[in-house]
Amino acid sequence: MSTASNPPSGEDSLIARYFRPLATAPGAFNLDDDAAALKADGEDVVVTTDAIVEGVHFLAGDPPDTLARKALRVNLSDLAAKGATPAGFVLTLALRAVEEDWLKPFAAGLGEDAAYYGCPLLGGDTVSTPGPLMISITAFGRVPPGKMVHRAGGQAGDRIFVTGTIGDAALGLDVLRGGPAAAALGNDEAARAALASRYRVPTPRNALARAVRSHASAAMDVSDGLAGDLTKLCAASGVAAVIDVPSIPLSPAAASLVSRKAVGIETLIAGGDDYEILCAVPGDRVDGFLREAKQAGVVVTAIGGLIAGTSPPSFLDAHGRELALKRLSYSHF
Amino acid sequence: MSTASNPPSGEDSLIARYFRPLATAPGAFNLDDDAAALKADGEDVVVTTDAIVEGVHFLAGDPPDTLARKALRVNLSDLAAKGATPAGFVLTLALRAVEEDWLKPFAAGLGEDAAYYGCPLLGGDTVSTPGPLMISITAFGRVPPGKMVHRAGGQAGDRIFVTGTIGDAALGLDVLRGGPAAAALGNDEAARAALASRYRVPTPRNALARAVRSHASAAMDVSDGLAGDLTKLCAASGVAAVIDVPSIPLSPAAASLVSRKAVGIETLIAGGDDYEILCAVPGDRVDGFLREAKQAGVVVTAIGGLIAGTSPPSFLDAHGRELALKRLSYSHF
Repeated sequence: MSTASNPPSGEDSLIARYFRPLATAPGAFNLDDDAAALKADGEDVVVTTDAIVEGVHFLAGDPPDTLARKALRVNLSDLAAKGATPAGFVLTLALRAVEEDWLKPFAAGLGEDAAYYGCPLLGGDTVSTPGPLMISITAFGRVPPGKMVHRAGGQAGDRIFVTGTIGDAALGLDVLRGGPAAAALGNDEAARAALASRYRVPTPRNALARAVRSHASAAMDVSDGLAGDLTKLCAASGVAAVIDVPSIPLSPAAASLVSRKAVGIETLIAGGDDYEILCAVPGDRVDGFLREAKQAGVVVTAIGGLIAGTSPPSFLDAHGRELALKRLSYSHF
Repeated sequence: MSTASNPPSGEDSLIARYFRPLATAPGAFNLDDDAAALKADGEDVVVTTDAIVEGVHFLAGDPPDTLARKALRVNLSDLAAKGATPAGFVLTLALRAVEEDWLKPFAAGLGEDAAYYGCPLLGGDTVSTPGPLMISITAFGRVPPGKMVHRAGGQAGDRIFVTGTIGDAALGLDVLRGGPAAAALGNDEAARAALASRYRVPTPRNALARAVRSHASAAMDVSDGLAGDLTKLCAASGVAAVIDVPSIPLSPAAASLVSRKAVGIETLIAGGDDYEILCAVPGDRVDGFLREAKQAGVVVTAIGGLIAGTSPPSFLDAHGRELALKRLSYSHF
């Protein structure tokens, strides 16, 4: 961990100064050692890793605090979907230069989220790069032994739920890029800002982790688009699915754009970066799941069910007609 | 983890095909899930993370299998120095393009090392980048509760040991760059190859982890140069140190270059990338440490001792004169 292992040059001590306050866990050893420790506590450690790259996952010039939050939150979202309670994270930062103007808001945003979600910094590595900025986070969560929730496990008959609303981040990216949604929204600054914010700073549903762990048969977060991610959950579980498209929860801005035909529902279903939880819940667990979700303050919506079969999920419109989706989700290569 | 979470495009399935065979731990879930699990087994999980960047930590055109090995081994070296037994790792790979000619030897080298060191792939994220290739690894090890070995803990009176030989990697980099060592070696291809290999593929001392955990009061791996890293160990432990420079173990090639005055001993002491273990062992533990090191098949050499005080370590030559070190170690920024 170069935060600790680099010599105390001016820049390195700058990095240490900004990140040390985030290392609140005893096992981070104040970032003064070469490794961190997650104490044995009888629970499994769930591990997830996600990186974001300038020009690929975020736009050059995006506010540093939003980058920090997004980099952490996409990992927190994975922990939530796996039913895990956050335990900490390590950060790898590839920077062209160490600039206090950038580091300060970055560390501040990261620190606020780390505190809010109870996921302290455990360590990291800061390296120089001649290329794009890259932020890579590996996050850790805890579950009782064997209780991590998988993509596999869904059964025919299970109800399918999603948290929050779907498609806002895809619209937010469109707004930031000046696409069709941006044009249709005209000078509705509130809607534009709301959608852009959903793209830049997702809201991971960690409050729902316990309900997912207690009741879901299968779960994952929606990062590459609802349609594509549901396809993966179905494939892993060995089932098919039928989705009632009008039931898919949309934000007011998204619903308005769809009703005015400014964007197709397909854009929202295939768009990525939602970071909502998609999960399957057996019939006899639905009441308990809804009750715990309500207690957790997380809105969940039933959008369909798992059925026997191995065909791709069907998305049915208000007339029971199947939507033809050209593109299921986002691919890097 | 995009290895799993990306849609099955041709390139993604290529990545999956090459990396899935490395995911031999049950908790990797065959790379089919969004997270991995480290099972609760009553031990602490030690976490370390190190990234390498093209043009910074390795040279463009370096053989892919050596990059894979180096990226994993620098992390294994941290685990060894902390007294931890390898348990697995996650990999983040930022690539300009997915090329089978590159991926195949990369995954093969990584897989061989993962098997040899008992450190299976648990998951990862593969992202596209317009910039330099970057390989980031977070590795996990296990220690009995509270038994991670720290930088702090060394006491005045402890003996200082290093494993292997010091300075070869710095000379290897010089050879690859055609510097003074390269010139002095002339057409001694065996020596050139031996030194270059020490730079490209370090040998982590994981076999010594148990001896370190059982006997060392403080330890770290030498990644940024012996002088600088010893300075850090002393600072963390609140002690000073005296090193007997003629005792510092050198390879035949390094010893020959020094005796011919082709390079100064300072170059070897301040050079980085050794990935040897530096540790402090209390006097009454030395016999046990030496016995266990021998059983483990790892050569260890006493090079000095910790003393009371807070001044930087003294490096004394054969006449007891102190070496003046201009530069303690490597810094990224």
